[in-house]
Amino acid sequence: MRFVIIGGVAAGASAAARARRLDERASITLIERGPDVSFANCGLPYFIGGEITQRDALAVQTPQTLKGLLNIDVRTSTEAVAIDRVAKRVQVRNLASGTTETLSFDKLLLAPGAVPVRPALTGVEDTRIMTLRSLQDMDRIKAAATAAQRVAIIGAGFIGLEMAEQLIRLGKQVTLVELTGQVLPPLDPLMTRLLEDELRKRRVEVLLGDSVGAFEDGSSLTCRLSSGRSVAADLVVLCIGVRPDTALARSAGLELGKRGHIRVNAFMQTSDPDIYAAGDAVEIEDFVSHEPVAVPLGGPANRQGRLVADHIFRPAGARPYPGSLGTAIVRVFDVAAGLTGWTEKRLRAAGRPFRTVTVNDNHHAGYFPGAKPILLKLLWEPESGRVLGAQVTGLGGVDKRIDVIAAAISGKLTIDELAQLELAYAPPFGSAKDIVNLAGFAACNTRDGLVTPVDSLPDDPAVQVLDVRPPPLAKAHPLPRPRVVNIPLAQLRGRLGELDRTQPVVTVCAMGKTAYFAARILAQNGFQVASLTGGIRAHFDPRSPAKLPTP
Amino acid sequence: MRFVIIGGVAAGASAAARARRLDERASITLIERGPDVSFANCGLPYFIGGEITQRDALAVQTPQTLKGLLNIDVRTSTEAVAIDRVAKRVQVRNLASGTTETLSFDKLLLAPGAVPVRPALTGVEDTRIMTLRSLQDMDRIKAAATAAQRVAIIGAGFIGLEMAEQLIRLGKQVTLVELTGQVLPPLDPLMTRLLEDELRKRRVEVLLGDSVGAFEDGSSLTCRLSSGRSVAADLVVLCIGVRPDTALARSAGLELGKRGHIRVNAFMQTSDPDIYAAGDAVEIEDFVSHEPVAVPLGGPANRQGRLVADHIFRPAGARPYPGSLGTAIVRVFDVAAGLTGWTEKRLRAAGRPFRTVTVNDNHHAGYFPGAKPILLKLLWEPESGRVLGAQVTGLGGVDKRIDVIAAAISGKLTIDELAQLELAYAPPFGSAKDIVNLAGFAACNTRDGLVTPVDSLPDDPAVQVLDVRPPPLAKAHPLPRPRVVNIPLAQLRGRLGELDRTQPVVTVCAMGKTAYFAARILAQNGFQVASLTGGIRAHFDPRSPAKLPTP
Repeated sequence: MRFVIIGGVAAGASAAARARRLDERASITLIERGPDVSFANCGLPYFIGGEITQRDALAVQTPQTLKGLLNIDVRTSTEAVAIDRVAKRVQVRNLASGTTETLSFDKLLLAPGAVPVRPALTGVEDTRIMTLRSLQDMDRIKAAATAAQRVAIIGAGFIGLEMAEQLIRLGKQVTLVELTGQVLPPLDPLMTRLLEDELRKRRVEVLLGDSVGAFEDGSSLTCRLSSGRSVAADLVVLCIGVRPDTALARSAGLELGKRGHIRVNAFMQTSDPDIYAAGDAVEIEDFVSHEPVAVPLGGPANRQGRLVADHIFRPAGARPYPGSLGTAIVRVFDVAAGLTGWTEKRLRAAGRPFRTVTVNDNHHAGYFPGAKPILLKLLWEPESGRVLGAQVTGLGGVDKRIDVIAAAISGKLTIDELAQLELAYAPPFGSAKDIVNLAGFAACNTRDGLVTPVDSLPDDPAVQVLDVRPPPLAKAHPLPRPRVVNIPLAQLRGRLGELDRTQPVVTVCAMGKTAYFAARILAQNGFQVASLTGGIRAHFDPRSPAKLPTP
Repeated sequence: MRFVIIGGVAAGASAAARARRLDERASITLIERGPDVSFANCGLPYFIGGEITQRDALAVQTPQTLKGLLNIDVRTSTEAVAIDRVAKRVQVRNLASGTTETLSFDKLLLAPGAVPVRPALTGVEDTRIMTLRSLQDMDRIKAAATAAQRVAIIGAGFIGLEMAEQLIRLGKQVTLVELTGQVLPPLDPLMTRLLEDELRKRRVEVLLGDSVGAFEDGSSLTCRLSSGRSVAADLVVLCIGVRPDTALARSAGLELGKRGHIRVNAFMQTSDPDIYAAGDAVEIEDFVSHEPVAVPLGGPANRQGRLVADHIFRPAGARPYPGSLGTAIVRVFDVAAGLTGWTEKRLRAAGRPFRTVTVNDNHHAGYFPGAKPILLKLLWEPESGRVLGAQVTGLGGVDKRIDVIAAAISGKLTIDELAQLELAYAPPFGSAKDIVNLAGFAACNTRDGLVTPVDSLPDDPAVQVLDVRPPPLAKAHPLPRPRVVNIPLAQLRGRLGELDRTQPVVTVCAMGKTAYFAARILAQNGFQVASLTGGIRAHFDPRSPAKLPTP
C-alpha cells in the first residue's frame, strides 16, 4: 500500500500517524509545502503575545520525529502540482531545488488546509499588512509587533479576538475593525456583549459595523474605513477568515461544494474513492441538519485525518464521521465565549423552527468564594424538544458548559433530559442545579407555557414594564427606559393593585430568574405577562449586579 | 390543594418553591425538625476551614424568605411524629413548646434526608466525637477545631476528604483513618493514587485498611484502631456515611428498600400514591442498570423535589425521573477526583460484563502554559460499546470531563461516539484531541483488537517488560521491577532483535500512549504483546514525569 498525503499539519499528520500504527509495512509519504509539519496552529497568537514562550513547543512533531517515530517519508518545502487520477500519480516539486518528481499512490489524502482571505483592496500589498497561518507568518507578525505602536486588526472573529488580546498584552494600541455589528460574528449578538465590554475595558478600540475600503501608505499605514473614519497603524493583521486551498483538487477534477470546498462522503472520500480529503479544505455534514458545512477547526481536522487512515487500512472497522457541531471557544482576557450546534441567526437564516431561552447563573455555587457570572443561551427544536445549539459567555466555566451541551447534542438529548442531567457538584466545581439544568428548566417552562419569554422590552408604552429587583438595586442600576414600575418580588402579591390588569406586563430583573417568579405570580392572577429572558445582564449591561454590595 | 412537606433542605425546599410557582392558591406547609431550611449542606466543611467566611452565605433561603417570596407556611424546629394515611393527616410537634398539632394533607412529601452513621463503639458518646450534617454540627466542629491541635477523621469518603483538606488549612495535625485500602472508596483503587499522594504531601497522616475499634477517654481522646495502632486526638470527626432517616415512613407502613430507603416510582411516589418521597432518604432507579440505588447527593435531591411538585400540580406535564448516574466530585487541595456511572468494582460486584481503558493527558493543550495532568478511566459494555462509567483524577479540568461523560452516558453514547465528540478547543481550554476523545480512541482500539491493555505488570519472569521511555528518563524514574528492557520508541524498529520473539512482551511508558505505539509495532512484527493501560502514572507513581525537565 502506497499512501501519499498532501499537507502535513492537523489532518495530514494525524492520518500519517494512524496509518503507521495500523500498518507497519505501508509506504507512507507526507508532502508539505511549508517547512513545518504538525505544528500547533491554534497556538500562534499566544507566541506572538508572549504567553507561550518556547517557539519549539509549537512543533508537535518535526519531520525528524515523524521519520523516527513513524517511519514516514516526509517531504517539506515540497508542493504537489498535479494529480493524475487515472495513472494514480501525483507530481511534486521541491520548492528549494525546483526539481520535480512523480509519486505513485494507491490511496491519496488531500489535506491542504485553508489560506487566510486577503481582499483585493487598494494598498493591500503593503508588507505591513499581514495574515496569520504559519509559523513564518507568526514570526513576521511578532517581529513587526515589537517595533509597532499602533496595530489594527481587521475582523473580530476567533483569531481577531485572540490577536487583540495578545497585542494588548504586549502593550500595543489596538484597534479592532469588524464588518458586522458585533464582535465574534458566529454568535448571536446579545451573547457577545460581555466580550465587547471586556475588550473596551482593556482599551481595545472596537469599531463595529465598519470595514476597510483601502489602505494608504504615508508616514504610517492608514486604513480608510467605509464609515469615513481612518485608522493609522504600524501593523495591520487581517483576520477576516480563510478560504479552502483547493486549486489542486479543482484541477484534478474532484467535486467541489458551493463555496469551493472539497466534497467528501462520511468516510472522507472525494468524488474519486481512492482520493480522500480532510481538514479545513473539506465540506462535511452538519450533525443537526445533515447539510454540507465547512468547519475549519483543529479538532475536526485531527479526527477526520485519523478516520481516513482507518478507512484505508481497516475499512471494515471504520465508522462514518458523525457530522460536525461547529463547537468553538475563544478567550478574551477574563471572558470566554463559545458555541456548539446552531445559533439563532443560523436557524433564522435557514428558516428552521426553534425556540430559545437565555439564563444567567454563577459558574459554581454562589456561596463558595470565586463564583463567576456565566450566561447561557439554549436553542431547541419545538416539535421534538431536541437541543439544537447553545452559546455560553462568562468569566468562568464556559468551556465545561459548551462541552456538556456538545455531548448532549451528540446524544440527541431533549430539553427535558438537559433539565435532569446529573452533573458533578461540589462547591468548588458546580451547583446543585447547574446552569445547564437551569437552561433545561427554563426551556421546559417555556415549552409548557408556564412562562412567555421575550427577548426585548416592548416599545408599546401601554405595556407595563415591571422591575422586580429590590428598590435600592433598581435605583442604583436603572433600566434604560422610562415608565418602569418597581415592585420587588417579595412585595408583589400584596401590591398587585398597582398594576393595570387590562394591560400586558413584562417582568424584568437582573438575571431573569426573579422576573420569571414574578411572571408566575402575575399569570396566575389573571395578568397577560411575559418575562425578559436573561434579564438585564443579557440585554443591557452584561455586568449588571444581582445585588448591591453589602456596605 | 393542601401540600405538606416534611423536611426543608434540598428536596423539600425545591418542592415547595416549584409548587408555589405552579399554584399560587395551594396551601403549602413545610415542616423542618431543625432550625434552618434550604441551607447549603455541601458548604459546611468550607465554613469550618474558613474558605467560606460568611455563615449566612450558607442559608440559601431562610424561613422568612420562604414565607415572603413563596407564601409558604414554614414550621422550623417542628417534628412530624406520625402519619395517618387513611385520614390523610400528619401529626407534628413543636420541639420548642412541645405542643402537637394535626395537619391535613391532600399530598404529602417526605424529604427527611439522612443522618450520619454513628457506630455503637465503646466510648463513641464522647462529646469530642462529632458528625457533620447541620449548621449546628458545623458550629460545634468549628468551635472544637479552634481549640484542637490533633484531629482524627474517620472515613476517607467525600466529606472525610473535604474535612481533611479544610482542617489542614486551619493548621491542624490531621489523621485520616479509612477502613478500605484506598481513599475515596467509591472510586477504583488506581484512580485514587494521586489523591492519596496529595494528602500525604500536605501532611495528612493517611491510615488505610484500618478502623476504629474503640474510643478511650484520657488526657486526650484515643482512637484504638483494629490494627493495634492508637491515634490521639482532641477532636474526632466521623465521616463514615449516612443512613436514611426513615423511621416515620416505616411507622406509616410505607414500603422500604433492602437498606431501609423509601421506595419510590419514577414520579417519586411511595407505595402510597398520595405520599411522595425525595432526596437522601429514597432509593431511585440506576440509569444504567435500572436497579434501585441510593444517591444521597444535593443535585438529585433538588431535581427530585422539583419533580414531585410537577407531578402533583401538573401531572400531565411531569416527566419521569431518568435514573441516577451517581455523578460526584471532590477537591483535595490541588487535586480533584470524580466519577459518573459505574466503576469497575461495582461492575465486578454485579457480575456485569465490561471493558476498560485508562488514559493520561493534559487538561488543555500541552504547549500552552499551565497544562496540568489528568487521568481518565473509561468503562464500557463490550456488546454495545455503550459507555457505562468514568472516573477522572487530576490537577485541572476534572469536573469538565466528568460532566461531559455524564452527558454522554445520558445520551447512551458509545465509545465510537465518544471518540468523535466535538468539544471546544482553544489552547487555554482544551486540546484538538481532548482526553475524552483519547479515551474513546483507546477504547475503540481495545475493542478492535489493535491493542491488548493490561492493568498490571506480569509476575511471570518469562514475560518481557519493555520500557519505551527515553533512557535518561527511564533511568531517572525506573520501573519498580527487575529485568526491564529499555528501548526508546524511536529506536524500537531497529532493535527488535534484542527482544525474544518466543516470549510475550508488555510495553510500558509514563502515560500509556508511547507504550501503545510500541505495542502496535511489536504486534505487527509477530510479537505477542500487551500494553500497560495508563502507564506508570496510573500504576506506580501518579506524578511520574512524561519527560525530564530541560536543564
